[in-house]
Amino acid sequence: MRPSGRKIDEMRAISVETGITKHAEGSCFIKCGDTHVLCTASVEDRLPPWLRNSGLGWVTAEYGMLPRATGSRNRREAAAGKQSGRTQEIQRLIGRSLRAGVDRVALGERQITVDCDVIQADGGTRCASITGGWIALRLAVDALMKAGDIKENPLTDHVAAVSCGIYGGQPVLDLDYAEDSEAGTDANFVMTGAGGMIEIQGSAEGATFSRAEFDQLMDLAEKGVAELVAAQKAAIA
Amino acid sequence: MRPSGRKIDEMRAISVETGITKHAEGSCFIKCGDTHVLCTASVEDRLPPWLRNSGLGWVTAEYGMLPRATGSRNRREAAAGKQSGRTQEIQRLIGRSLRAGVDRVALGERQITVDCDVIQADGGTRCASITGGWIALRLAVDALMKAGDIKENPLTDHVAAVSCGIYGGQPVLDLDYAEDSEAGTDANFVMTGAGGMIEIQGSAEGATFSRAEFDQLMDLAEKGVAELVAAQKAAIA
Amino acid sequence: MRPSGRKIDEMRAISVETGITKHAEGSCFIKCGDTHVLCTASVEDRLPPWLRNSGLGWVTAEYGMLPRATGSRNRREAAAGKQSGRTQEIQRLIGRSLRAGVDRVALGERQITVDCDVIQADGGTRCASITGGWIALRLAVDALMKAGDIKENPLTDHVAAVSCGIYGGQPVLDLDYAEDSEAGTDANFVMTGAGGMIEIQGSAEGATFSRAEFDQLMDLAEKGVAELVAAQKAAIA
Amino acid sequence: MRPSGRKIDEMRAISVETGITKHAEGSCFIKCGDTHVLCTASVEDRLPPWLRNSGLGWVTAEYGMLPRATGSRNRREAAAGKQSGRTQEIQRLIGRSLRAGVDRVALGERQITVDCDVIQADGGTRCASITGGWIALRLAVDALMKAGDIKENPLTDHVAAVSCGIYGGQPVLDLDYAEDSEAGTDANFVMTGAGGMIEIQGSAEGATFSRAEFDQLMDLAEKGVAELVAAQKAAIA
Amino acid sequence: MRPSGRKIDEMRAISVETGITKHAEGSCFIKCGDTHVLCTASVEDRLPPWLRNSGLGWVTAEYGMLPRATGSRNRREAAAGKQSGRTQEIQRLIGRSLRAGVDRVALGERQITVDCDVIQADGGTRCASITGGWIALRLAVDALMKAGDIKENPLTDHVAAVSCGIYGGQPVLDLDYAEDSEAGTDANFVMTGAGGMIEIQGSAEGATFSRAEFDQLMDLAEKGVAELVAAQKAAIA
Amino acid sequence: MRPSGRKIDEMRAISVETGITKHAEGSCFIKCGDTHVLCTASVEDRLPPWLRNSGLGWVTAEYGMLPRATGSRNRREAAAGKQSGRTQEIQRLIGRSLRAGVDRVALGERQITVDCDVIQADGGTRCASITGGWIALRLAVDALMKAGDIKENPLTDHVAAVSCGIYGGQPVLDLDYAEDSEAGTDANFVMTGAGGMIEIQGSAEGATFSRAEFDQLMDLAEKGVAELVAAQKAAIA
Repeated sequence: MRPSGRKIDEMRAISVETGITKHAEGSCFIKCGDTHVLCTASVEDRLPPWLRNSGLGWVTAEYGMLPRATGSRNRREAAAGKQSGRTQEIQRLIGRSLRAGVDRVALGERQITVDCDVIQADGGTRCASITGGWIALRLAVDALMKAGDIKENPLTDHVAAVSCGIYGGQPVLDLDYAEDSEAGTDANFVMTGAGGMIEIQGSAEGATFSRAEFDQLMDLAEKGVAELVAAQKAAIA
Repeated sequence: MRPSGRKIDEMRAISVETGITKHAEGSCFIKCGDTHVLCTASVEDRLPPWLRNSGLGWVTAEYGMLPRATGSRNRREAAAGKQSGRTQEIQRLIGRSLRAGVDRVALGERQITVDCDVIQADGGTRCASITGGWIALRLAVDALMKAGDIKENPLTDHVAAVSCGIYGGQPVLDLDYAEDSEAGTDANFVMTGAGGMIEIQGSAEGATFSRAEFDQLMDLAEKGVAELVAAQKAAIA
Repeated sequence: MRPSGRKIDEMRAISVETGITKHAEGSCFIKCGDTHVLCTASVEDRLPPWLRNSGLGWVTAEYGMLPRATGSRNRREAAAGKQSGRTQEIQRLIGRSLRAGVDRVALGERQITVDCDVIQADGGTRCASITGGWIALRLAVDALMKAGDIKENPLTDHVAAVSCGIYGGQPVLDLDYAEDSEAGTDANFVMTGAGGMIEIQGSAEGATFSRAEFDQLMDLAEKGVAELVAAQKAAIA
Repeated sequence: MRPSGRKIDEMRAISVETGITKHAEGSCFIKCGDTHVLCTASVEDRLPPWLRNSGLGWVTAEYGMLPRATGSRNRREAAAGKQSGRTQEIQRLIGRSLRAGVDRVALGERQITVDCDVIQADGGTRCASITGGWIALRLAVDALMKAGDIKENPLTDHVAAVSCGIYGGQPVLDLDYAEDSEAGTDANFVMTGAGGMIEIQGSAEGATFSRAEFDQLMDLAEKGVAELVAAQKAAIA
Repeated sequence: MRPSGRKIDEMRAISVETGITKHAEGSCFIKCGDTHVLCTASVEDRLPPWLRNSGLGWVTAEYGMLPRATGSRNRREAAAGKQSGRTQEIQRLIGRSLRAGVDRVALGERQITVDCDVIQADGGTRCASITGGWIALRLAVDALMKAGDIKENPLTDHVAAVSCGIYGGQPVLDLDYAEDSEAGTDANFVMTGAGGMIEIQGSAEGATFSRAEFDQLMDLAEKGVAELVAAQKAAIA
Repeated sequence: MRPSGRKIDEMRAISVETGITKHAEGSCFIKCGDTHVLCTASVEDRLPPWLRNSGLGWVTAEYGMLPRATGSRNRREAAAGKQSGRTQEIQRLIGRSLRAGVDRVALGERQITVDCDVIQADGGTRCASITGGWIALRLAVDALMKAGDIKENPLTDHVAAVSCGIYGGQPVLDLDYAEDSEAGTDANFVMTGAGGMIEIQGSAEGATFSRAEFDQLMDLAEKGVAELVAAQKAAIA
């Protein structure tokens, strides 16, 4: 019934390649099916002005899509002269999600910027960015700890994200683009490895949804995030 | 226990004044406690390019805060030369929420722009904008129907929104600024008059939240939205 | 003969409500007929770079119109990404006018920003902004003096403004939009309570005007400003 | 008593060179003392959108200062990414002033853009731009008439401008920079050859000014504009 | 003697992977040593306004660097709100170079946009972009021909580029970053498969260079481009 | 055979007027045939951030064209809100070229900005800007040395530039607009007085060019630059 032939609660294939650029402190190339995102984590000693001398670190994120990551070419945001509202909304979500898994005192007065650039899009780019962004962040933190720059691990848990939705009247896990563009309801769930909720965003497209339906989406999300966390563990091993 | 002395499930006082500008097709000034928002609905015959000759109408929203709506003065966005990511995120939410209650075929080929300008902010400005914006939209639609420009009512139901959060470890209804800035979890719920869910946005600040806690927030939200819908009914009567 | 039925030298009804936002140091909502402007004065300790350590204070102004303050909706300047030439011209005029009534040594090293946001426009918005902006400024200064932050009153006199024009060949006082859009000549006069001239801007639309005609406009303006100053006195009493 | 040694009612030396670029339909280089402005008039068949098929023509103006037209270098506006409020205010004034001397029906459906670029500034650049801009406009109109593109002369009269001010307590004609930066009151007068008033802009810097003083400034301005109009006549002869 | 241990006239290892995104009509991932660029070619039916109904096609290019393609993170151009002068200069060069190998009549009224996004930078990114961009362009053209949309091959020859420079007083081929940042002279050569010159850009850094030295750089470039063309042939085979 | 009737190796008439603005430390108005450029050099004590306390000076350039410098009016870049890619490319070239003739240690911690504003364009504006810009720079340096602010002359040699091209199959010197718009190949050469190469930019338009042809262009350029350097010497004498 799903365009991809997947089962209701079946994730797309996940693959992660780490260390894919020689410059970044942490990096990975994550593929969730045909959604491919390049994630890098850059460590800098300077902090945003409002945090200087606060004893706290900062983790932030930026998101972009290459112009031809999609079926038809989109205008390059740098050429357009601004990031779209959608881009800003997504990168604010990624940053907020990753920070939820960081002890900013333990991080110390430094900033880590996680860049998520979508090379190929097939639905769920923000979720793949969070899941892959966490791996890049973790690798950068590992490097800082190995170098002795950080004593205590500032990452308190895994952070991963998945989208679920109601497609053809049926709650399904890990929407691809074909499903996403038809789904009646679309929801993103960001969770920790321990199953704590960080961020929930559910949105009706057309019909509204009920609490019962939303409960089913949460069940699916918990299953999906557990698989993503397992993939994260394998990648950083 | 709440800074305002309100009970756990007590909304702030709601007041709505309609028809507050002589130019707009629909308008209201909504006060949710000390959060005051001016909402106008403007009807135009032109549509965004991608909808021309589609037989469908469009409802969109813009959001702004006067520079001194807040405790300290913010830079005027027009002077800064762009709308912040936060502003764009909010106005996208308002537009999406209102459209969820509109039959765009019945609306016909016209656009209604709902402007929500915050005169005074004390938490929950996006929710007040949705609730008040719906009233302005409804008044504009009433005018169109009275003039015979629309035959069938294109508004399928009320749309209203409230924020809930976990403050001091306790789920509470309708966060004000003092609570919002301290809350461990903050969630916005947009619902219809019939209780259908349109949009759910929950976000952990600091600690994560559990499904049980989120259920309690939803209970509170259902109570709050019911009161808001009653206030909408009184306002348009 | 005037569309409103007013006499040649009759002002529109003036009303002023003060203290209309809990955050600003000074604020008022001024109505000159159907032109309604919200004015706030915000006190800040920081100064523009070129005044730091000069011993002088600064008063500046910003002006905006809500998108639907007018008969048809205007594009929101924040969304357009810049303030129009008209907006900049008006806010420069407001700031210059208010500063003409300020002893900047007595003000001390602080900045007061007066925001004038037009909620409903019916002609004469820049004049109403100056007249109402002065009230907000005065209330902020009163608060500073009451708190002991300023010893000597830095406001040297009232500042108020009115527009006059030649409508149907006849000089008239206090143009409303219906008159303004038809007037052959349009002039704005900014004066002090003592009747000193701060700013005169007269502009021919179509036919030129003579010195004799301009003299008649000044006579009308003196009468109008006297009434505005009386309204200011009543408002701050 | 004046820094330049000029008499109270003495203009600076005026010189005009016409035809100074081979491309523009009309052009001149005007020198008012040490203020030097290059003016070109460009004729185009296209009109702004709001005038298409109206039967009316349009005259507009743009103003710029070369970065080192002044004592210290100013940032290039093209590099800064926007025109300052001052620039926009000036170019709006130039366009409005020139249009006051144009019969837009006789001009027909074409646009003439007058560019005024200040090569060297010594006070009074907006006035020199209007006076020189009119010459460039007239030369472009002459060319259109000679070519038979326009039958009837669309220019109804000369348009010229001069600044006056109160310097050292004394009303003086044609302020240079040394005077302008010290003047208590500064006023610009735009008039026709027949002495009709097009635009009056008077502004107090520091002390306010009286009606009697303003009358003296107008007397001076009438004398000055008459001399400028004579210079225009000589230039286009 | 070279930091990489390469011989004077030795290119870095070249690898090309084609078809690396499912959406673009043509694509490749080109590696010239540690410089890695993703190139996509997007075919669109719409043309820039100045070419509509001209019977000619258009090939254009855009260039970008991921923020962490370099040793330290650069600001994202989309966030900065504009493309740097360097970026614009490079993308103009890429577009001009590729067009030199295109018969725009044979291409017909369509536009092909070549996007070159640098994933990892180690010197010579503009040259790798041209060489890889040509492959993406060729693959897109192949697809158009296979689909019967184009009858005659519009690509007249290969286009490839290499940089040479004077490093340590010695002309060397294919500068990497370590050499580029120290080189006294840096030159980029764009050539066709037949050895015709399309673009030469030589620039002294510090000392000037002589015609004899420039001749040596051209010799090296001819050798390098021949190897790049061979790699292009292998990639599209 | 050339549109202007010039010989193959004949430059356009060169004229230079120095000291043409009273404000700039150095200035000239250079005419290369009908290409007229105003060049000013402005000395400032402040440096770009990355050079502060480095002991090094900086020379930079900005380039602009008046809107009607060309046959049809171009949009003013300040009004458009950005400098075009072409403008940025040219001003980067001018700055780089001039710096190649500067001993930045001898210049000391100051910045000289060379502004090149094209009053009338007829091809070769970037070359005229370099040649004239050097004269303005030299005059500013002379003033600094005369004032004792600099001990040792920081200018190591003349810097001048000329364009050559293949027009009608024939290499020719100093392209004017009529030739430039038809030329098969266009190349700019920046050289020192001693004949050292600073910058070479050759570009095929249509057909490619051979090394033999490029050699002929270099021969022409050497002749042309020698004449330009002679004109520079005469101008500063």
